[in-house]
Amino acid sequence: MASPSTADRAAVIGTGLIGGSIGLALRARGWHVTGHDADPDRAAQALAAGAIDAVGFDPAAQVTFVATPVDAVAKEVAAVLGQVGLRGDAVVTDVAGVKGPVVASVGDPRFVGGHPMAGSEQVGLDGADGELFVGATWVLTPTAITDPGSYARLQAVVVSLGAEVVALSPEQHDALVAVVSHVPHLTAATLMNLADRKAEKHAALLRLAAGGFRDMTRIAAGQPGIWPDVCADNAPAIVEAFDILLADLSAMRDRVANGDRAGLLDVLEHAATARRSLPSRAVRPERLSEIRVPVPDRPGVLSEITTLAGDLGVNIADLEIAHSAEGDRGVLVLVVDADGSERLVEALHGRAYRATARNLQ
Amino acid sequence: MASPSTADRAAVIGTGLIGGSIGLALRARGWHVTGHDADPDRAAQALAAGAIDAVGFDPAAQVTFVATPVDAVAKEVAAVLGQVGLRGDAVVTDVAGVKGPVVASVGDPRFVGGHPMAGSEQVGLDGADGELFVGATWVLTPTAITDPGSYARLQAVVVSLGAEVVALSPEQHDALVAVVSHVPHLTAATLMNLADRKAEKHAALLRLAAGGFRDMTRIAAGQPGIWPDVCADNAPAIVEAFDILLADLSAMRDRVANGDRAGLLDVLEHAATARRSLPSRAVRPERLSEIRVPVPDRPGVLSEITTLAGDLGVNIADLEIAHSAEGDRGVLVLVVDADGSERLVEALHGRAYRATARNLQ
Repeated sequence: MASPSTADRAAVIGTGLIGGSIGLALRARGWHVTGHDADPDRAAQALAAGAIDAVGFDPAAQVTFVATPVDAVAKEVAAVLGQVGLRGDAVVTDVAGVKGPVVASVGDPRFVGGHPMAGSEQVGLDGADGELFVGATWVLTPTAITDPGSYARLQAVVVSLGAEVVALSPEQHDALVAVVSHVPHLTAATLMNLADRKAEKHAALLRLAAGGFRDMTRIAAGQPGIWPDVCADNAPAIVEAFDILLADLSAMRDRVANGDRAGLLDVLEHAATARRSLPSRAVRPERLSEIRVPVPDRPGVLSEITTLAGDLGVNIADLEIAHSAEGDRGVLVLVVDADGSERLVEALHGRAYRATARNLQ
Repeated sequence: MASPSTADRAAVIGTGLIGGSIGLALRARGWHVTGHDADPDRAAQALAAGAIDAVGFDPAAQVTFVATPVDAVAKEVAAVLGQVGLRGDAVVTDVAGVKGPVVASVGDPRFVGGHPMAGSEQVGLDGADGELFVGATWVLTPTAITDPGSYARLQAVVVSLGAEVVALSPEQHDALVAVVSHVPHLTAATLMNLADRKAEKHAALLRLAAGGFRDMTRIAAGQPGIWPDVCADNAPAIVEAFDILLADLSAMRDRVANGDRAGLLDVLEHAATARRSLPSRAVRPERLSEIRVPVPDRPGVLSEITTLAGDLGVNIADLEIAHSAEGDRGVLVLVVDADGSERLVEALHGRAYRATARNLQ
């Protein structure tokens, strides 16, 4: 192994696009990064590309990112947590696109599920980029068994890479990505195949495919290989979202068939307004608020409060757990966008937490 | 009116994004362009922006582009063709996105329906661009009554703006744009509204909307106002395409529900391959072929041959009608991409035309 260092230490398991990008991002911020890949050539390539400092495992790593395909995550997380001499405050996370099954199968307080929402269109280390996560949303999925300290340390590392952390329960994450990612992807592929079938008879069709069609089907060019796993892991949420989409599309078809001009204009105006107000890559808020929440020292409080903020769309820029002298209580200190502060405090009061907020400079 | 000029003369009715872009493109190529708009301020703005040389109508215009909303096209075309002193070889075209109803309602040999497939996302003269059509597909829809000379002159002007002409029957055009434009647009709006509805309960959803979702819904931000007309004019084709899409999406949903991994991988791989081979903006072919087709002097021959080429995806770069001395026959001379030459000649032979091809340098 590498000689002892005073640098913060991290490890990456799986050195593809996401793992490589995490390695580059961490090293650019002064971390020592050890990397492993099931394919030794790929690990060597990551070393040569400067995405990692050393090949192998590192029991001294404070945080380990398991960035393998989803079917290998549980095994790799167990291997990391089972290392001889593993440091006491080690935290492990993953990057899989469906969280429910992975999180359920690991079941360790030191593991927090994660999903960085960036870079899905490229594949392999060649697309790796140390700035990939700047402004990107990075979902973390704490649960009732999650160790609050592990969560707080992981959140700090993820934020330091430039990402905006959204805490959601694994189930909430999976339901929402079905709507904004999985079903749109499968719909893009369906539209592309429909056009391709028509183009067999009418070659002109593809010459009529202008910018709008190209935009809509771009994601269909992505990696087909990952989707059978994604669909298997998230089948219930995908089917539910599909059923809603099918009903909505049927209604749209009927508006056209029935010449319902007012109805068409109404839904299209609504969509245009919603699309125009879709936030672009997150911009760091100008003003921050600090929310202090006295909390009992019992499992699940951290995940309850952070996922409540996530569900409300309130960005947690920083998070700290201050234990009181008595030991059975503590204070959760959250730094959030000032815009969302009141919303979160109100929701916390609704759950009987005595939260207080103050604006920071 | 402007003083007599030796320049080629054109006119534009409707000086918005498309009309303004046509004016800019023509003027950059030495044409004198007269422009009219129902809104005098907009015509004045076009004059100030250099999109037209003069405000008004021009009976001496060789070609007039009617670039108004679709419901005004037939009236404006009739006004142009009814001008006192209209030159004998005048040709009129339009730019509406649905061709069947417009072409049927005009019914004049000097009118050729058109649809430049560019610039749909912006609106107004501010987005006008003289290079908007370079590499873009521009559909022309000749019919049995179209005057071949009018068609040939219009085709030459459109090609001179940098566009690739695809000739299609109005019905064929409308069926194909339903698949690659209208239904995708309505689907994008439906996806956006579905996500927006979910986001009312779960604000986090929009923070999970990454690049793929943004790409897929981009066109939903476009001009809602044009769509009730488009949907009314093209309802049968849109409903037919929707019914296919709904069946295909149901099949996709069932693959997920049934855990059909092999089926999912198969359709997603097919879509990825099709999307990757989707041509980008047309590139001028390296090699051209000249096809000579002896044709009888009867109505409909030109539209039959040009729309056959269009349907086969064969680009016609140039077109000329050489009349024979006897007068009852002529020769249609087409310059096409060398790649498509054999395909077109074979199809012409299949329809008993004695077509011959030779490669050009």
